[in-house]
Amino acid sequence: MAQQRRVQLSTQRPTSTVCVLGTELSLDVCGSAPKDAVTFNVQGTPGVKIYVVHDTQSVKLPSSVSRWPLAAGAEVLLAMDTISKDVGDEKVRISYYGEAGGVPVGRAMLYLTCVEISLDADTTRSGAVSKTLLDKATWTWGPDGHGAILLVNCDRDDPKAEMLDNHDTAIRSYDDLKDMSQMVLRTRGPRTIFTGHRLVLHVDFGDADKVGVFYGGNSVALEEYKHVLGGSKLVYAVKPSRHQEESIFYVEGLAFPDLDFSGLVSFHVTLLESPEKGLLETPIFTDTVVFRVAPWIMTPNTAAPLEVFVCSVDNNEDFVAAVGALAEKAKCPLTVCPLPENRQDCWIQDEVEFGYVQAPHKTFPVVFDSPRDRGLKDFPVKRILGPDFGYVARQAPEGASSLDSFGNLEVSPPVTVQGKEYPLGRILIGSSFPRFGGRRMAKAVRDFLVAQRVQAPVELFSDWLRVGHVDEFLSFVPAPDRKGFRLLLASPSACYQLLKEKQEEGFGEAVMFKGLAGVPKPTISEILANEALRKFNNYVQSCISWNRDILKRALGLAEPDILDLPQLFRGDAATGADAFFPDMVNMLVLGKHLGIPKPFGPKVGGQCCLEQRVRELLEPLGLTCTFIDDYFSYHLLSGEVHCGTNARRKPFAFKWWHMVP
Amino acid sequence: MAQQRRVQLSTQRPTSTVCVLGTELSLDVCGSAPKDAVTFNVQGTPGVKIYVVHDTQSVKLPSSVSRWPLAAGAEVLLAMDTISKDVGDEKVRISYYGEAGGVPVGRAMLYLTCVEISLDADTTRSGAVSKTLLDKATWTWGPDGHGAILLVNCDRDDPKAEMLDNHDTAIRSYDDLKDMSQMVLRTRGPRTIFTGHRLVLHVDFGDADKVGVFYGGNSVALEEYKHVLGGSKLVYAVKPSRHQEESIFYVEGLAFPDLDFSGLVSFHVTLLESPEKGLLETPIFTDTVVFRVAPWIMTPNTAAPLEVFVCSVDNNEDFVAAVGALAEKAKCPLTVCPLPENRQDCWIQDEVEFGYVQAPHKTFPVVFDSPRDRGLKDFPVKRILGPDFGYVARQAPEGASSLDSFGNLEVSPPVTVQGKEYPLGRILIGSSFPRFGGRRMAKAVRDFLVAQRVQAPVELFSDWLRVGHVDEFLSFVPAPDRKGFRLLLASPSACYQLLKEKQEEGFGEAVMFKGLAGVPKPTISEILANEALRKFNNYVQSCISWNRDILKRALGLAEPDILDLPQLFRGDAATGADAFFPDMVNMLVLGKHLGIPKPFGPKVGGQCCLEQRVRELLEPLGLTCTFIDDYFSYHLLSGEVHCGTNARRKPFAFKWWHMVP
Repeated sequence: MAQQRRVQLSTQRPTSTVCVLGTELSLDVCGSAPKDAVTFNVQGTPGVKIYVVHDTQSVKLPSSVSRWPLAAGAEVLLAMDTISKDVGDEKVRISYYGEAGGVPVGRAMLYLTCVEISLDADTTRSGAVSKTLLDKATWTWGPDGHGAILLVNCDRDDPKAEMLDNHDTAIRSYDDLKDMSQMVLRTRGPRTIFTGHRLVLHVDFGDADKVGVFYGGNSVALEEYKHVLGGSKLVYAVKPSRHQEESIFYVEGLAFPDLDFSGLVSFHVTLLESPEKGLLETPIFTDTVVFRVAPWIMTPNTAAPLEVFVCSVDNNEDFVAAVGALAEKAKCPLTVCPLPENRQDCWIQDEVEFGYVQAPHKTFPVVFDSPRDRGLKDFPVKRILGPDFGYVARQAPEGASSLDSFGNLEVSPPVTVQGKEYPLGRILIGSSFPRFGGRRMAKAVRDFLVAQRVQAPVELFSDWLRVGHVDEFLSFVPAPDRKGFRLLLASPSACYQLLKEKQEEGFGEAVMFKGLAGVPKPTISEILANEALRKFNNYVQSCISWNRDILKRALGLAEPDILDLPQLFRGDAATGADAFFPDMVNMLVLGKHLGIPKPFGPKVGGQCCLEQRVRELLEPLGLTCTFIDDYFSYHLLSGEVHCGTNARRKPFAFKWWHMVP
Repeated sequence: MAQQRRVQLSTQRPTSTVCVLGTELSLDVCGSAPKDAVTFNVQGTPGVKIYVVHDTQSVKLPSSVSRWPLAAGAEVLLAMDTISKDVGDEKVRISYYGEAGGVPVGRAMLYLTCVEISLDADTTRSGAVSKTLLDKATWTWGPDGHGAILLVNCDRDDPKAEMLDNHDTAIRSYDDLKDMSQMVLRTRGPRTIFTGHRLVLHVDFGDADKVGVFYGGNSVALEEYKHVLGGSKLVYAVKPSRHQEESIFYVEGLAFPDLDFSGLVSFHVTLLESPEKGLLETPIFTDTVVFRVAPWIMTPNTAAPLEVFVCSVDNNEDFVAAVGALAEKAKCPLTVCPLPENRQDCWIQDEVEFGYVQAPHKTFPVVFDSPRDRGLKDFPVKRILGPDFGYVARQAPEGASSLDSFGNLEVSPPVTVQGKEYPLGRILIGSSFPRFGGRRMAKAVRDFLVAQRVQAPVELFSDWLRVGHVDEFLSFVPAPDRKGFRLLLASPSACYQLLKEKQEEGFGEAVMFKGLAGVPKPTISEILANEALRKFNNYVQSCISWNRDILKRALGLAEPDILDLPQLFRGDAATGADAFFPDMVNMLVLGKHLGIPKPFGPKVGGQCCLEQRVRELLEPLGLTCTFIDDYFSYHLLSGEVHCGTNARRKPFAFKWWHMVP
């Protein structure tokens, strides 16, 4: 339905008005009718399309009917489809007739000027602004959806700058402009029309703190670009110039979707008429375009790695070298965070989560900085934030717990659950639910994750662990069959079954932790005979089984999608569970190359039986297992390979706006 | 898909577990298999339904196949449909066989106890709690939707109480209980099972400040009812007793949906198993039920009036009497707010808006108190809040403007717009949009109105008025035809047309304001000759026309749905517009009886020509027009009949949960 504007007429004097291309004028024919008039007739110049609406029927003129009764609700609609060359170059005349007919009892003249005013953005998501017939004021999801997209300009294109690009109101580089979405205001028509009218670009009060708009008068000189809208600037008066029909505005996002921000921001251009000196302008046309701020998106283990991170701290040279060798096998660059930047904090998995933002015109990675602030606190801002590498953080005003570390934040590969598609997977976070009390992830982080909408979070139960991270009992690895992946779960019962089997084969005296100086070396039989350990592991198994049930339901998995890696835990009700030997599920997945904590299990026939079992499970999937010794450097500090590394991964080929959340 | 729980078995010792009615157990048959086992066989007592899942096929036992290969992913599923009489009264045996077959190489026994645990609410929206197969953890809109409903318990059933019922954690009356929604926990099964298990009712951390839950052990004595959940109470341990299979909890809402609250609140019951002393309990079953807090709903002019409000202030006795007479005609009780309670503040339309909340079990009116706080400030809490009459308020921390008065908050009758139904109408608020700067309604009020979701607000342009309320230029009246109503708009052009017609008929010397002492009395010809007045009214007309266009689009109206009431305004750009003579559209609508500000227009043939025209427009719709003199008492103070009155109206027959927002 075209935008319609009511126009009053007069038989006393001619009326002049503007008709915006693509809109209709609704003439109040009854309102200007002389007292004695009973019928009317409409005539117009060829550039005006005229319809008479009568008895709810709409008849296009010229028609066989030449005079229309002046019934209540009689209406004349006008539309124009050619831009005027001069002001008032088209006209419409309404003639009123009395009962007698013959000579008109009155005439109302309307002079029309057709102009084009259109605010456009990349509504079709093609990567470029184009004119469209789509409804620009609405935003819809899905492959057939429409609506423009905005990036939070949270990178730092100028390496000398202190802050994120969107923390100031200056354009510092052309790269900065490239992160922004274009919004184009088209104005065509006789320029003199804009002396009696004003054109303003404006943003809703509630949205103004979410965006910044820059305008350089289409100049190429960066210094010409001014911050014209956003923050306290709610309106910008546009001055259409004679030689310029398109004004290009650059729009940046300031905030990600969150609990109190849907992500949608509307911009309007309004044409204001000032008919009389001393009177306020009145709006006669508004065009609106809506943007959605792109969500922050996580990448699963099954995505190709682009960069591996590890920290260099005291006495972990061998570990760094082993991770480096694995990265080399996976043909993936390694970034080592040096001691001065990590201050002996080796848990780079916990400090940050790598994700990305995407619009049709631009994609860049964004690091999410956790509320956990230890030695690595400054590393994300100082070293990761940079040109086309964005940054976002959330704080935990209530105080951060171990569950706020991002080892407790993972995402599944794409899944379909009872017909509902999650083409970007589902976020997994650990919590104390369904136990009451206990630790939980900070509300600000949870709210942020939920508000992104595209990777609907699932809450798992991780508070039974001393550290409490989901990566202590689960991981995902790529697979050539089924859903394209396997869920790996740590399994005490699988471990007991394996050890019992080895005992029955006659290897009961084989010891664990062989070669590790100063570490007690229990035999298989001693472990199997330790009733306290068995009971604790039964408890751990029931906690992991609870999560298995949730994961099957929330990710639509069947038993064959899950592999149980043998693993034992130790601890008690007061302290929570720790891995009894290096926690194999806490692995680094780089494509087909897995860096798995070396378990130091009992040797059977010269082979570690735990490594052997894990190989039997994973190698048939085309994966290669590299067991990395992290015993003294990480395991004894309550973490493993995954905790001590991190990976930036390739964005999904699937565009987030093609999904329906 | 039934909730499933993974159970580990052992060939060493029997396993005992609970099977909750309606759930499945998934037995880890591979995990407990002895080393040499290659096949297995399952047998169970008659109360257990057994399925073998093999190669993604599910086969119900007994089947012709008696032994199953121990392939990876082989799984046994169990379900039970009869509550156990004794602990462990059903059992399942897995027998493992080696290559040779013959004698089993191992056996795993599982003792099963079937219990019923179910958390139910009025998910079917029938007004009573019933067991259901619907998904209780989701909430859906529409005639086929499901999900329970909660009321914000914002009334004051105890007249002696100071606060709203939900401001404390006590139950003061049975009426208070009746405002709450029941939530029923059903527990059946051998009671001794609950000694080794704990049953807890809990609420998510983020929802706890939105609800209160009371439990009286099913006692009828009010003093037995304790506040068990909500606020800082996140969990309540339930003790199932031998003689009681149903525990009835009473749930009240504390907060309406708002910017940061979707309105959905989940409750869970969890069964915790404590297998060993000194170990923490582990969850083995959770049932979840979700409630939506009912929105606050406004009623349009077209709804039947139940109570009319007016203030008694100095020198308005005649007005109060006239409103009383109109109310009597409409058979509607009148409530007069006396001077001590209004402190000379006669604008009761501006202080409050009457609406209601509704759940299947209960409906009551709720007054929304505006951030405008003048003489009537205390009236809503002191006199309107009461038994089954709720109260809600929002503040404007940024400072309230005239646009925060609720004369600026109206709602349309039900409409359908391009196929989209608004069965409860759409809220209309006035704003300065699309002009920039200017006054706007407080963000907290707008956010609240939007968050109710069921009457999607439309923003109109009212800031051109000095007072700035939408009720200064629009109203709705019932009609027997078309959409069931007409939109009335104040129309300067209709007024000029009428006056010119009367001038042409020879009544140019007829005066306005006849009989009003001390008021200048312009003639029709003088008014028509006043060019400044005409120009200002052209400006006013263009502002109203802008709103007409928005209303047509947002409410799906056609021209015949709109009636133009003759009206003039005066003022200038600096002060804004005021009604030139009593603003007729600012009327009180009580069914078919309209109380219209008496315009004191020029008399033609002994009749006021303005009244005459309004009658001609409205009486054909079956409406009766009573013109009420508000000139000195309200008009000169910048308000009229509508501003000086208010009405509580009948709730919609349509249930809000049947719509799809």
